[in-house]
Amino acid sequence: MPVDPLRVISDLQELRALTADANGAQRVAWSSVWQEARAWFQSKLEGLPFEHHYDAAGNSWTTLRGGSERALILGSHLDSVPNGGWLDGCLGVLAGFEVLRSLAEDFEGEPPITIRLVDWADEEGARFGRSLFGSSAFARTHTIEADRGRTDRDGVRLEDALRSCGVAMDQIGDAAKERGGAAAYLELHIEQGPVLEGMGLPLGVVLGTKGVERHAITFLGQEAHSGSTPMGARRDALAAAAKLALEIRPIARRHPDAVATMGSVKTFPGIVTAVVGRCEATLDMRDLDAGVLASMLAEARAASERFAKEEGCTVDWSRIWSIEPIPFDAQLIAFSEEAVRETAGVSHRLPSGPLHDAAEVARAGIPTVMMFTQSLAGLSHNKAEDTRVEDLTLAVQAFDRLARKTLEWLSERGG
Amino acid sequence: MPVDPLRVISDLQELRALTADANGAQRVAWSSVWQEARAWFQSKLEGLPFEHHYDAAGNSWTTLRGGSERALILGSHLDSVPNGGWLDGCLGVLAGFEVLRSLAEDFEGEPPITIRLVDWADEEGARFGRSLFGSSAFARTHTIEADRGRTDRDGVRLEDALRSCGVAMDQIGDAAKERGGAAAYLELHIEQGPVLEGMGLPLGVVLGTKGVERHAITFLGQEAHSGSTPMGARRDALAAAAKLALEIRPIARRHPDAVATMGSVKTFPGIVTAVVGRCEATLDMRDLDAGVLASMLAEARAASERFAKEEGCTVDWSRIWSIEPIPFDAQLIAFSEEAVRETAGVSHRLPSGPLHDAAEVARAGIPTVMMFTQSLAGLSHNKAEDTRVEDLTLAVQAFDRLARKTLEWLSERGG
Repeated sequence: MPVDPLRVISDLQELRALTADANGAQRVAWSSVWQEARAWFQSKLEGLPFEHHYDAAGNSWTTLRGGSERALILGSHLDSVPNGGWLDGCLGVLAGFEVLRSLAEDFEGEPPITIRLVDWADEEGARFGRSLFGSSAFARTHTIEADRGRTDRDGVRLEDALRSCGVAMDQIGDAAKERGGAAAYLELHIEQGPVLEGMGLPLGVVLGTKGVERHAITFLGQEAHSGSTPMGARRDALAAAAKLALEIRPIARRHPDAVATMGSVKTFPGIVTAVVGRCEATLDMRDLDAGVLASMLAEARAASERFAKEEGCTVDWSRIWSIEPIPFDAQLIAFSEEAVRETAGVSHRLPSGPLHDAAEVARAGIPTVMMFTQSLAGLSHNKAEDTRVEDLTLAVQAFDRLARKTLEWLSERGG
Repeated sequence: MPVDPLRVISDLQELRALTADANGAQRVAWSSVWQEARAWFQSKLEGLPFEHHYDAAGNSWTTLRGGSERALILGSHLDSVPNGGWLDGCLGVLAGFEVLRSLAEDFEGEPPITIRLVDWADEEGARFGRSLFGSSAFARTHTIEADRGRTDRDGVRLEDALRSCGVAMDQIGDAAKERGGAAAYLELHIEQGPVLEGMGLPLGVVLGTKGVERHAITFLGQEAHSGSTPMGARRDALAAAAKLALEIRPIARRHPDAVATMGSVKTFPGIVTAVVGRCEATLDMRDLDAGVLASMLAEARAASERFAKEEGCTVDWSRIWSIEPIPFDAQLIAFSEEAVRETAGVSHRLPSGPLHDAAEVARAGIPTVMMFTQSLAGLSHNKAEDTRVEDLTLAVQAFDRLARKTLEWLSERGG
């Protein structure tokens, strides 16, 4: 039985009706709405030849046992940010579900290898600020000690929220048991950016997730009266920061897919009648190539020091967070490209700026790839998030082709 | 009797002991400490041949009646900002007091014209945000309706604070009666900037107060994800603001005394992972020449529109406040320069960036001039504010010379 993209869209609409309000999707992980979404998904499994269980980190596994323990895994996440869109995460879960149904029918319930669908727990980290929760437990890159103290806005502890969903904080590492037999991981997701729309393409192949360098930068000059301090006598911290805000752009543009963003600037004392004495800025730089990322960071740092000196200021950097680039599997990228080209005629390779559960799976050493479908206006994490029905249709069809190519490849390699 | 600068310094120290704490001067207008400062000043008048009264706006007038109603007025203010310095304002009042004592003795209580000393009420506007309160009432440039709703941080209404000091809001315009006979106004003040110190000069002659254009500028772009939005697809409101922050500097530097300051920048959403969608900045521009100021404003506005266009943003300006340049009297500037040169050997003419009560007196059509004495490190509105004792000494001597030259001039012109 071929996949039915309209059934995926119908499922997505059903989920939206159940878990969204006028402001958008409300499937925040560890909330009752999220639990309802998962119960709804489980109810869909009735009468189908799948096993289902939750692992130690709260990931939801749906398994079609095959002739071998080796497993092809399809996955994404049902959880959303507050006031989220109708596609982010759940498109991948429900498209994967449709592919699983289709394969189960085609193989009459007995595929040559095992096929699994995973709904990762708390991809977004929207409530406790810890994204990729379930997939990092699976990959054993989780950080229990650092996360133990996390609380939500109401002071509820992450540990207590987990317990109310049947997850024991100290046991989440046991989710790594699910890695047994895992031979490949495939994830379909909306792009959440404007690249494919800008090129007029419905689908893209993801090369990996970009590494991220995230820093806080403070320029220290001298607060001074705006009326009595001549231009030549100023040590203006804002001027140094403004130069850096502009300089990070050519630094990023020297590389095709690199991005650099100054997202926050704070001025002190921050009043109309005073030269800025202290300016605090943030910098977020990303690229798929670790060498490029390191050189961008070094260039930005050197530029900041030059600008500080020019303005009679000092500059101080402190790392907020960083992660290395995570490239996806070359063979699976090739399959994905074939699948996209066969479905949509033309394909495009692009790195992912946002992180995804697929990055954690790849870090666990499992061959991984993602496929993106176009996002209208690049919008996401917003109820206005959308993708054309014709593009969603192509996405489900291409993802199905990718799964079948991968299945054939894994079957040929023996089990 | 020649003026005794050490007596002025001694009076300043006495006032500091009475009205400052470990954080600096606390003579905030309409406070009990301020009232204590004024009572202390009144106590100094005992046994001297002066009349004293408060006018309808709370200005404190000390008068030495002379052979004519025509009056030479010396003045400044006793009020301070919270945690203020020991010289800002009170130097002018107490140096003026010393000059008045000296002249009273020299003329045996009967000078050819009347000589008056004024301590203006609430120059700083520190508590209610309305600076030049008393002098603007005197000049009839006050704004009762706009000021009626003002409250301090604790919600106390300006009108009630005035009443507790015996001032009726609706009557403050009667302070203009004090203008009767006023023939010249002289004010000594610390520079509150680094110009004289930079030139190694103890004293300077003030050409007038600069006009001010104060604006709020909002750049509107498009918030976007820092990871998924390519550099070429961004509409970064911070980039447009950063260009303007740098461009206002050459705009100001084309004119010798002009200044331009971006004192506050706020970014929205202002998070590390988002391109800035909205950036709010403030601009403060000042010059003594109205034409220069107008052209600077036009250039900044044109630049902001150019930058907005370059960055795919829009820009919106809204005026916060403005005041025209207020030039001082040419004859009094010449007397002041003679006095400074005779006292310190060398003089320098400079505009004042900060406003002063003298500006309001000049707006009332009374010939006016100010004299500045050096500020160490340009610091003011801070307990670290200071001036060398030798410079304070020269300042009192030069101000005395200026008063005598002006008195002679006014006397010769007849009464």
